[in-house]
Amino acid sequence: MNRIAIFPGSFSPFTLGHKSVVDSAIPLFNKVIIAVGINSEKNQYFLIEERMQWIESVYDNNQKIEIKRYEGLTVDFCKKENANYIIRGLRDSHDFTFEKNIAQMNKKLNPDIETIFIITPPELSHISSTILRDIIKNGGDISEFIPKEINI
Amino acid sequence: MNRIAIFPGSFSPFTLGHKSVVDSAIPLFNKVIIAVGINSEKNQYFLIEERMQWIESVYDNNQKIEIKRYEGLTVDFCKKENANYIIRGLRDSHDFTFEKNIAQMNKKLNPDIETIFIITPPELSHISSTILRDIIKNGGDISEFIPKEINI
Amino acid sequence: MNRIAIFPGSFSPFTLGHKSVVDSAIPLFNKVIIAVGINSEKNQYFLIEERMQWIESVYDNNQKIEIKRYEGLTVDFCKKENANYIIRGLRDSHDFTFEKNIAQMNKKLNPDIETIFIITPPELSHISSTILRDIIKNGGDISEFIPKEINI
Amino acid sequence: MNRIAIFPGSFSPFTLGHKSVVDSAIPLFNKVIIAVGINSEKNQYFLIEERMQWIESVYDNNQKIEIKRYEGLTVDFCKKENANYIIRGLRDSHDFTFEKNIAQMNKKLNPDIETIFIITPPELSHISSTILRDIIKNGGDISEFIPKEINI
Amino acid sequence: MNRIAIFPGSFSPFTLGHKSVVDSAIPLFNKVIIAVGINSEKNQYFLIEERMQWIESVYDNNQKIEIKRYEGLTVDFCKKENANYIIRGLRDSHDFTFEKNIAQMNKKLNPDIETIFIITPPELSHISSTILRDIIKNGGDISEFIPKEINI
Amino acid sequence: MNRIAIFPGSFSPFTLGHKSVVDSAIPLFNKVIIAVGINSEKNQYFLIEERMQWIESVYDNNQKIEIKRYEGLTVDFCKKENANYIIRGLRDSHDFTFEKNIAQMNKKLNPDIETIFIITPPELSHISSTILRDIIKNGGDISEFIPKEINI
Repeated sequence: MNRIAIFPGSFSPFTLGHKSVVDSAIPLFNKVIIAVGINSEKNQYFLIEERMQWIESVYDNNQKIEIKRYEGLTVDFCKKENANYIIRGLRDSHDFTFEKNIAQMNKKLNPDIETIFIITPPELSHISSTILRDIIKNGGDISEFIPKEINI
Repeated sequence: MNRIAIFPGSFSPFTLGHKSVVDSAIPLFNKVIIAVGINSEKNQYFLIEERMQWIESVYDNNQKIEIKRYEGLTVDFCKKENANYIIRGLRDSHDFTFEKNIAQMNKKLNPDIETIFIITPPELSHISSTILRDIIKNGGDISEFIPKEINI
Repeated sequence: MNRIAIFPGSFSPFTLGHKSVVDSAIPLFNKVIIAVGINSEKNQYFLIEERMQWIESVYDNNQKIEIKRYEGLTVDFCKKENANYIIRGLRDSHDFTFEKNIAQMNKKLNPDIETIFIITPPELSHISSTILRDIIKNGGDISEFIPKEINI
Repeated sequence: MNRIAIFPGSFSPFTLGHKSVVDSAIPLFNKVIIAVGINSEKNQYFLIEERMQWIESVYDNNQKIEIKRYEGLTVDFCKKENANYIIRGLRDSHDFTFEKNIAQMNKKLNPDIETIFIITPPELSHISSTILRDIIKNGGDISEFIPKEINI
Repeated sequence: MNRIAIFPGSFSPFTLGHKSVVDSAIPLFNKVIIAVGINSEKNQYFLIEERMQWIESVYDNNQKIEIKRYEGLTVDFCKKENANYIIRGLRDSHDFTFEKNIAQMNKKLNPDIETIFIITPPELSHISSTILRDIIKNGGDISEFIPKEINI
Repeated sequence: MNRIAIFPGSFSPFTLGHKSVVDSAIPLFNKVIIAVGINSEKNQYFLIEERMQWIESVYDNNQKIEIKRYEGLTVDFCKKENANYIIRGLRDSHDFTFEKNIAQMNKKLNPDIETIFIITPPELSHISSTILRDIIKNGGDISEFIPKEINI
C-alpha cells in the first residue's frame, strides 16, 4: 500500500500548529502532500504563491513532503494524487464538530479515503490562522506563532 | 519503522463502533493490538476472558490483529509492545474533550507515542458500551449494535 | 392518534425546570405520563414514594397528567402505556450530547417512538436535581428552585 | 387546539435531514407549514422558487403539508398562520447552542409559541445544506443526501 | 496597583447582558473602560457615535466608568490606557471556545494583561447583539433586552 | 471594599494548573483563601492534611494566601470568611458547562458573591487532578505537572 496522505488547508498563514500536525504525520506515511487551497475566501489575504513559498521554506529538504495547490473536492484531489488518507488537526470541540461532518461526508463521497485526526499539543492549541491574520491587520507581531523559517 | 498501534479500551462489550475504528486502522499499520483493560470499573460487568473471546471471534483470521489484556499506564504498555501509536475513536464533542486531555498527557509522558483519532461513521455514532450495558440490564436486545460474531 | 407522551426521569427532586418542560408539553398531548424511575442510582437519596408524592402535589387536579413508577427500558414502558412520544428537556450542550445518543438509540429499539425535546427557559437553565441535592446535603435552602407545592 | 406547526429554514437545498424532521413531526400536528425564508444570505445560491418547488415535489400529495415563503420574524409569521409551534432539527452540539438562543428568544417575544426539537437520525447527522452547496460548487454529486424527488 | 480594566466589544447594541457584566466588574476595579470597537464588521449596522452615546446614557453618573472608542490590538489599547485587565462575559460553551483562544493569545502577546471572565446570569444568557440586530431588521421590539436608558 | 476571594477545590492533588489560577488572581485581591474541601468523594485518595500541606509548601511566604479546610456550601464559607469573590479556573468547554451552573446557582443563593473565572494557559490545559491520580495509581511520574515544592 502506498500510504500517501493529503493535508489540505488554506494555511493563511501556515502556523506552528499546522507544523506540529505535519511533523506528527510524517513517520506514518510515505508521502504527505500539503494541499494549499486556491479558492476559499480565507485565501484572499495572502497570495497562494506566498502561502506555498512559506511552507516550502519550512520543509525545504524533506523528501516526504510535497506542496501542491488544489481546488475542487478534497476527495477528488486525493484520487488524482493516489492518496488514501486525509490528515486534519484538532484543537478544540469547535474544530471537532466542524471537522466531524466534513470527514463523515468525505467518507460517504469516497469510502476508500480515511481521515486521520491528530490533536495539537496543548501549548499550540490557541493558535489559529484567523487570529494571526487579525493580529497582523492590527499591527502586532506573530513571529512566535509561526515556523522560524517564515518571515511575514 | 514498525508501525504497531494499540487500540486500548474496556470493550464492555465490543461494539460495531469499535469494529469500525479497528477496520479503518488496519490498512495503516502492520499490527493493531486490541488492548483490553483489566482494572477499570466498567469492566466489572463482563469478565475479561469473555470480553477478549468476543473480540477474538471477530478477528479470528486476521493476521494483523492481536488481542491482549493490559493494566497500568497505556504509554507503558505501548513501550512494552514496541508500539508508537495509540488509536482512539471519536463520536461526539464529549468524547473529544475527554480524549484530548488523555492524548496530550500521554504525549507528555512519552513524546514518541502519537495518538491517532478516527471518527466513527454517522450511522454508528450513537452506540456506546455504556448504553448497551444499560439495555442488557433492562432486558433489551443489543444484537444489531455489536458484530454478528458476538453472542451476548 | 392517541398522542400519549412519557416524561421519564428520576425527579430527585422534581424542579421548576422539570415543571416548565411538562407545562410546555401538556397542550400538545392528550396525556402526559410522568414516569418516575425506580432503580437509578440517583434515586437512593429520596424514596420513590416521596418523589411521586411531590409530583402529585404539583399536578393534583390536572386531568392530562398521570404519575407512574417504572423500571426497565423506557421504550418498553412506552409500549405498555401505549405512548408514542418521549419528552425530554434540554438545558445545555452537555445535556444535548447525552440525550442525543439515548434518543437515537430509543428510535432504533422502537422506530414508532419519537423523542420530542423542549429547551428550558433561560432563567431555569442552571437548575439541576444534582445541584439541588448537593445544596440540601450542605444545609442550604432550595425552595426557590422547586414548585411551591413541594416541601423538602 | 389547532396544532399547527411552522418548520422554518432556508432549505438551500432541502436535504434528507430536513425530510426526516418533517416526517417525524407530521403525526404530531394537524398541519406543518414548511416556511421557506426569502431574505437570508444563504438563499442567494438557489432561487426561492426553485427551493419551494423541490419541497413541493417531495410532499406532493400530503394533505398535512403546506409550503410557504416568508420573511420577517418567525414569531410574526407563526401568528399570521395561527401556528403555536416551531419545529427545529438538531444534529450536534453546535446546532444546539445556536438553536437554544433563538428558541428562548422566540418564547420571550411571544410566550404562546413553543419550539419543539427533533434530533436527526444518526445516519443523517453529517448532512448540512452548507456542505451540500460546497459539494455542488466543486462539481460533486449530492443525490444520495437529498430526497429522490429532487433533481439538482 | 491601579486596577484598571478594559471591557472591549462592538456593543451593537449594548444589551442587558453587557450591563450585567459591567455591573459585576465595577466593585472589583478602580476604573472600567468600556472600549467600543471601531472597525469590526459588526459595527456597520449602528454608528460608533450612536453606540457610545447609548452606553453613556446608561453610566451617566458613574465615576468608575469611562467609554472610549478603540481600534487595533486590545492589548495595545490596554497598555495605552494603563490597564492590566480585560473583562469578558461568557454565556455558553460557544462563547467559551471562542474567548478562550483570544484570552490565551492576548496573554502570550502581553503577559502582564489578565483576562477575567464573568458568566452572565441565566435569565440573560439568550441575549446576543446579533439576535437583537436581527429582530430590529425584521421589525421586532428589543426594548426588554436592553437597558431602559437606551432608545433604539 | 475588602477584596477577599475564595479558591475552592479538592486539590487532590494541587497542580500547576491550580497554581496558575492562584498566581493570576493574587494581584487582583487583598487575600486569596485556598479552600480545601473535606467531604468530596475525590478527597478519599489523599488525606486533607496532606493536601493542605502541599499547598502550604507552595505559598509558604506569601502574605496574601491563606489555606483553610472547609465543608458545606461554598457561599456559606464565603460569608463566614467575609469573602465576596469565588475564583475558578477554566480549561475547556466541559469545565465551562459544569462551572457555569454552579456559578449561576451560587449567585442565586447569595447575590453578593461573584464568581470570577480565569482560563488556564494553553500549556497547562490538559492537566487535571483526575488524570494525575490515575497516573499515580498506575505507577507513573507526575512531577512535571505539579509545583516543584510538592513531593508525591
